[in-house]
Amino acid sequence: MAAAAPPPSPTPAPAVIREDLIPTAHQVFSRIRLATNADVPHIHKLIHQMAVFERLTHLFSATESSLSTTLFPENSPPPFTTFTVFLLEVSQNPFLPIDNQNCTNFSPIHKTINLDLPVSDAEAEMFKSGGNDAVVAGFVLFFPNYSSFLAKPGFYIEDIFVRECYRRKGFGRLLLSTVAAQAAKMGYGRVEWVVLDWNVNAIKFYEEMGAQILQEWRVCRLTGGALEAFANVNI
Amino acid sequence: MAAAAPPPSPTPAPAVIREDLIPTAHQVFSRIRLATNADVPHIHKLIHQMAVFERLTHLFSATESSLSTTLFPENSPPPFTTFTVFLLEVSQNPFLPIDNQNCTNFSPIHKTINLDLPVSDAEAEMFKSGGNDAVVAGFVLFFPNYSSFLAKPGFYIEDIFVRECYRRKGFGRLLLSTVAAQAAKMGYGRVEWVVLDWNVNAIKFYEEMGAQILQEWRVCRLTGGALEAFANVNI
Repeated sequence: MAAAAPPPSPTPAPAVIREDLIPTAHQVFSRIRLATNADVPHIHKLIHQMAVFERLTHLFSATESSLSTTLFPENSPPPFTTFTVFLLEVSQNPFLPIDNQNCTNFSPIHKTINLDLPVSDAEAEMFKSGGNDAVVAGFVLFFPNYSSFLAKPGFYIEDIFVRECYRRKGFGRLLLSTVAAQAAKMGYGRVEWVVLDWNVNAIKFYEEMGAQILQEWRVCRLTGGALEAFANVNI
Repeated sequence: MAAAAPPPSPTPAPAVIREDLIPTAHQVFSRIRLATNADVPHIHKLIHQMAVFERLTHLFSATESSLSTTLFPENSPPPFTTFTVFLLEVSQNPFLPIDNQNCTNFSPIHKTINLDLPVSDAEAEMFKSGGNDAVVAGFVLFFPNYSSFLAKPGFYIEDIFVRECYRRKGFGRLLLSTVAAQAAKMGYGRVEWVVLDWNVNAIKFYEEMGAQILQEWRVCRLTGGALEAFANVNI
């Protein structure tokens, strides 16, 4: 049956084109959500990839079991009060709503991105997340820190990582801004992290987003045998 | 009534001289204990003195009220799971036992110190702590951080401060080693803090105690208007 001719339109409203709503061949859907204990195998693989990228695998000793125990202990306190992981997922299809994990002060962030070229993800099977074609593409691990001058908490970002085939598409910025937005929402005073001084591209990116690079401060670390020895020096 | 003559001694044991038990004119007793909400006025004054020392009073906006709300909120989690303050107290007299503040994994640390000269503390009245002559002489503020490579928590020391008249007597080392000992006791992997790169005396002291100075890393900080702006950039 032929379709009936459409009724004549009234005077048409001016067209409003929202580019983010135009489907393209290379549109991807992304979501940032709180990680749970069920995500530990993915988190473990991501941290290992980060160690490979930083050429620091000799320092890598995390196991799925030790991550699970330390990041998601029984009777965990609420998200954001201690070590917290946001996972970045991407999919060719829109994400369905998920349970909000009893979290009253954060809802998953959704962003649709149009890419010039499709992403070829050789590790898609290994990073599969949920029932459809979604994969885990990156993460950020952070926890509260404290400024005594401001008498305010902030967030310290320990790790931020995006898998290689998803880089240079704005996902790192999306992860960072999600942490910044959460800090602002909670009335926190600062977000801090560290960068290697020779990583000029990263430093430029951070400065452009408004971050200060504190040139005079050096991180001091007491670990391993030196920690044990100093722990016993006075007491 | 005259005292009876003492009975003749048996062959005397060789004398064991414990120098730390010989009272001297300049002996001081020190104690490190967990701070409570009642200590906030002292903590506030100490943080302000630290801002003066670092010439950063323009960044100082803490009030007693904001410190109390953020360091000792209602239904605080147990010590060491979030922002934690150790107070250093000194006295001319031994400290009496105190309530252990329901803390099962830390007991106050006591150390007796023999000084060449007595301490003249012009601020003793302002920093009076408890009923006798004890005063608050310093503090350390720290909180858990996390190493994803180790899959272990550690402690990050935000502040360590000893009032001027108590410096160069080993109290800074005592505060640091108390945090290190607590980290080791809890099976934590690291203690970290930052130092100014021109503070060569501090760097030498930290290196001698076994700490690594991470020369390549720079701290990045997003705060104030830049934090608000970036928080809204994507979402």
